[in-house]
Amino acid sequence: MKKAIAEFVGTFTLVLFGCGAAVIAGMGTGATSIDVLGIAFAFGLSIVAMAYGIGMISGCHINPAVSLGVHLAGRMSAGEMVTYWIAQVLGALAGAAVLAIILSGKASGWDGGLGQNGWGAGYLGEYNLLSALVFEVVATFLFLVCILGVTQKGAPSHLAGLAIGLTLVVIHIVGINVTGVSVNPARSLGPAIIGAGSNPGALAQVWLFIVAPLIGGAAAGILFKTGLLSAESED
Amino acid sequence: MKKAIAEFVGTFTLVLFGCGAAVIAGMGTGATSIDVLGIAFAFGLSIVAMAYGIGMISGCHINPAVSLGVHLAGRMSAGEMVTYWIAQVLGALAGAAVLAIILSGKASGWDGGLGQNGWGAGYLGEYNLLSALVFEVVATFLFLVCILGVTQKGAPSHLAGLAIGLTLVVIHIVGINVTGVSVNPARSLGPAIIGAGSNPGALAQVWLFIVAPLIGGAAAGILFKTGLLSAESED
Amino acid sequence: MKKAIAEFVGTFTLVLFGCGAAVIAGMGTGATSIDVLGIAFAFGLSIVAMAYGIGMISGCHINPAVSLGVHLAGRMSAGEMVTYWIAQVLGALAGAAVLAIILSGKASGWDGGLGQNGWGAGYLGEYNLLSALVFEVVATFLFLVCILGVTQKGAPSHLAGLAIGLTLVVIHIVGINVTGVSVNPARSLGPAIIGAGSNPGALAQVWLFIVAPLIGGAAAGILFKTGLLSAESED
Amino acid sequence: MKKAIAEFVGTFTLVLFGCGAAVIAGMGTGATSIDVLGIAFAFGLSIVAMAYGIGMISGCHINPAVSLGVHLAGRMSAGEMVTYWIAQVLGALAGAAVLAIILSGKASGWDGGLGQNGWGAGYLGEYNLLSALVFEVVATFLFLVCILGVTQKGAPSHLAGLAIGLTLVVIHIVGINVTGVSVNPARSLGPAIIGAGSNPGALAQVWLFIVAPLIGGAAAGILFKTGLLSAESED
Repeated sequence: MKKAIAEFVGTFTLVLFGCGAAVIAGMGTGATSIDVLGIAFAFGLSIVAMAYGIGMISGCHINPAVSLGVHLAGRMSAGEMVTYWIAQVLGALAGAAVLAIILSGKASGWDGGLGQNGWGAGYLGEYNLLSALVFEVVATFLFLVCILGVTQKGAPSHLAGLAIGLTLVVIHIVGINVTGVSVNPARSLGPAIIGAGSNPGALAQVWLFIVAPLIGGAAAGILFKTGLLSAESED
Repeated sequence: MKKAIAEFVGTFTLVLFGCGAAVIAGMGTGATSIDVLGIAFAFGLSIVAMAYGIGMISGCHINPAVSLGVHLAGRMSAGEMVTYWIAQVLGALAGAAVLAIILSGKASGWDGGLGQNGWGAGYLGEYNLLSALVFEVVATFLFLVCILGVTQKGAPSHLAGLAIGLTLVVIHIVGINVTGVSVNPARSLGPAIIGAGSNPGALAQVWLFIVAPLIGGAAAGILFKTGLLSAESED
Repeated sequence: MKKAIAEFVGTFTLVLFGCGAAVIAGMGTGATSIDVLGIAFAFGLSIVAMAYGIGMISGCHINPAVSLGVHLAGRMSAGEMVTYWIAQVLGALAGAAVLAIILSGKASGWDGGLGQNGWGAGYLGEYNLLSALVFEVVATFLFLVCILGVTQKGAPSHLAGLAIGLTLVVIHIVGINVTGVSVNPARSLGPAIIGAGSNPGALAQVWLFIVAPLIGGAAAGILFKTGLLSAESED
Repeated sequence: MKKAIAEFVGTFTLVLFGCGAAVIAGMGTGATSIDVLGIAFAFGLSIVAMAYGIGMISGCHINPAVSLGVHLAGRMSAGEMVTYWIAQVLGALAGAAVLAIILSGKASGWDGGLGQNGWGAGYLGEYNLLSALVFEVVATFLFLVCILGVTQKGAPSHLAGLAIGLTLVVIHIVGINVTGVSVNPARSLGPAIIGAGSNPGALAQVWLFIVAPLIGGAAAGILFKTGLLSAESED
């Protein structure tokens, strides 16, 4: 139960702060906006915050693709993974809901955006479906390489929160123009569902941000299971 | 006595550097301004500076809401908390006073601003009272989740300063548009009182930045006391 | 074999994320671009990601100049260095190829740029050959001073990934205007070769980004071998 | 001898990268400039680079005010301090000289600036002498509080490089508009002397950037010597 609470709080924070940076601070102009670099740091530093806040309880996955990779690497049971998934999606929905409450108090109005992921015409850099798919699969794979590497036996795991958070920063710096960056099905589902009323297009595209991160996470998990990228079995 | 000196110096630094970034660097235009991201790093890295500078003496709370949460989590007596509170508010007043001296030497003049918190018409993103209240309560609660988690027994507490400081960065990235970000009654009181002459509106609104952070901090302290988010009692 | 796979994945990531930041996020305007500071963090944080992801396997050189310096400092055989070099160049080619696939899906078209290094007329700050040569040699030398210092016996090597990554950030902040910053022959070769069709000028200049980093790296390796900058032999 | 070499290389790096960021990257416009935040990170991350590169040899002071504070705190002899001072000033001169070589290769010409410190009419935010003096004394004092705190017995000294470097980042975020930020007599002397031909005004003002940092550093050193801010003698 404590692990589920921790994953709920962690994913809540990731969505509130990460997507919040995108829509609260990104909505302004000039001195009050933060642009891509600020949004990237918001997502990554949310991981740092929660890795050290709740990491001792649940490991701070706060991402279904991470839990899948950890499971396939042989470090977590399927049953526990499903518990994590449920807590993560509920946390993301709650984070998006609180963000919606804050945004609805803006004097100049609010367009209903909650930092939904997407691609194609009208979405940021207007990259196509293939670009979005390749980016999300590859970025999630590399994200998991960092996560599974730094948390394996013998690694400096006390630094894992910093390393993983800073990895999420660089992934966002690169990919916000392509997809807004998911690499995390829960982070995509929360804003897509809560914001479905004003932005139904995001809900139509959310499948990619469930499928692609899970493929990337699974690939990394299997690779570590084979031992080809894990330090435990020396060659 | 040493602990009070440390808390005084630490809160002095937070206000001088954090609010200083907002009004010295934020006042310029173009290449000499830093905008939201720079202000966010200034507040967060001030925590890093003092966590490692004075943390061994006082734990570097430099925030009455943090001291309240630590007290309610059962880690600090009420008497010591009050001593910390006094030192923190005095440090914040001194930091704001030194900042005022520096700013009064600006050739092009100074509008009297000291980085006061606020909300509503004319304040940054113009969010309403409810948005301000929700943000400050929730952000302080999550701030304390990180602080109480990373400083509990068995946690990598030597990294606490980095983790907590970077958490304050992301909180500022998200919330500067909403309230200027307090999550710290002392940080709000110092500039509001010292700058009351030129900006009485800030003093009228300062109550929220005392009440809301204390509520958020208390909630996290109680949650850790129950053990629901602390690693010590495994379930 | 595992070491070669690790170096391949690491250099792949450095090119995909570092050069990707430069051409995906740098190509936009206004809120979707990241400018020099964002590109600098992308390169540096890619090192952080991989240092903690694959560092336990290969040491995460992902740079032929680093491997040369490590070899000349007496910490790696010539044969292993050559294996690393091959894996690094192949990884950089693969990273540039995947980046090209993502970029070719941009609706508004793509000019074929992949973050190639260069100098002279039409290249960023338009610095001449001598400036480019001096910068690349000196910056690679100082990069290796950090790397060889923090990984020597008795050093806090668990922090090496952070220290080295943040060093690469500052090198990019300073030098992007001069050469786009290489300090890494593999990082230069990948984009120059894969992007040769649309930008043959980059291929003509790539020699400098092989020669200069190797000179800088070799100088640092030899200096550490003499013991003048290594802590092991006290004077 | 090794310690002097280390201090020379470290101060060389700080000036080349820190001042280099200010004049190479700061000189451009739009996408090729970095502004205050980028310059702040360049100075701070140069400290990180060298703290981990040469810190095991000399402690990486690379700043005469730091060596004075360390001496007055009773941790270094006067003779060794003078050796450090000489190496630091020579390193700063060499760093400024190499920077001048790189800058002289810029096609559009170079105005002779090397990141000199200053104040008053025509200097950045145009703050007066008193503001400059107060800022430099107070900022150096707080810088030393972090340095002397995190390197005392029992502190997490392996993190000192990160903590100190990030402290220098926030000091620059706040103070670049006021004085360009010195807190380091060597960092000011190098560019002022090497650039004296084209900017004699900087040389006329350099006295403040020798006197003020030494006062601030001395005050912190004495405070630690008394034990009022050091953890060693519990009260």
